[in-house]
Amino acid sequence: MTGTFLYPVLLHYPVEDKDGNEISAAVTNLDLHDLARIAITYETGDVWVVTPIPEQQQLVRDIVEHWTIGAGSRHNPDRKLALSKIRLAACLEEVIQVLSLDVSSPVFTVSTSARKTGSELSFESLRQLFKQRQGHYLLLFGTAWGISRKLQRQTDYQLEPIQAGGGYNHLSVRAAVAITVDRLLGR
Amino acid sequence: MTGTFLYPVLLHYPVEDKDGNEISAAVTNLDLHDLARIAITYETGDVWVVTPIPEQQQLVRDIVEHWTIGAGSRHNPDRKLALSKIRLAACLEEVIQVLSLDVSSPVFTVSTSARKTGSELSFESLRQLFKQRQGHYLLLFGTAWGISRKLQRQTDYQLEPIQAGGGYNHLSVRAAVAITVDRLLGR
Repeated sequence: MTGTFLYPVLLHYPVEDKDGNEISAAVTNLDLHDLARIAITYETGDVWVVTPIPEQQQLVRDIVEHWTIGAGSRHNPDRKLALSKIRLAACLEEVIQVLSLDVSSPVFTVSTSARKTGSELSFESLRQLFKQRQGHYLLLFGTAWGISRKLQRQTDYQLEPIQAGGGYNHLSVRAAVAITVDRLLGR
Repeated sequence: MTGTFLYPVLLHYPVEDKDGNEISAAVTNLDLHDLARIAITYETGDVWVVTPIPEQQQLVRDIVEHWTIGAGSRHNPDRKLALSKIRLAACLEEVIQVLSLDVSSPVFTVSTSARKTGSELSFESLRQLFKQRQGHYLLLFGTAWGISRKLQRQTDYQLEPIQAGGGYNHLSVRAAVAITVDRLLGR
């Protein structure tokens, strides 16, 4: 299945800290690289990086510019291709608004989490949903300790946690994006 | 399937640079964190980090120590648990030697690559092999532009590249480990 209808969204706000407080997390350089490389490998839609903090937005612009038009683009053309997939927004509402202007079919939000909510879709059910309810899907990932519970409840769909036998579920957001996109689009 | 027989090995040597020359690559802090967190989530064996360079070995020890007995261990106990999975070796031969002393069943090497060699096992075949040929499996990942071709030919098995439709196959080693371990042990 080609994945252009699926947009990984990396939220730095609203996310939680380890005590469950709502915070705005800092941007991590390697998150941008890893997500861009996953997106281009699996041919997803663009990767949206969301942060409301102007200095952090500038950091994202600087990183993307270095690799798409600066010195990095000459050093590593593959990385240029990947980083071109990165788009920036101040909040999730802005992503939905901008994307809705670009596309004619409806835009749905799917939150991911290491926490069970009791009303999640399985990976297989979400794959089925993609076929049954055509549209554009924003696949939300939270940095720090994950998407705020409040936002999680407001999304159209919640995806089940990545199950792996062990009781430990603190994958990095980079690993979680890789596994989730592979389960939804791979093979 | 419990994954304790499978050991992710992160090779910094011998790997290739983008022109195909054999090099020793630098250690990346987040690689250690991400691989440790994947390993504990999927209950694999220990993660072996391989670098022949003494200063780089010291860097690995410093990072692991910070999170397992230093300030990081008090700040984040989950990370302590994960980073305890990291072991260090100067070369792949040392990993095989040390592991062979620890365990009674045979030790096999499986290389991963974004390049096709023509003699790879599929993910499904490797899953079958785990049942048919019991032993301990070292799952080798190369940093930089991947494991050197010479070493790749010398391993017991080669695993097929992660296929994802697009022609682009430059996933980060962190994403490649996440997807590979999930395909072999997840679900």
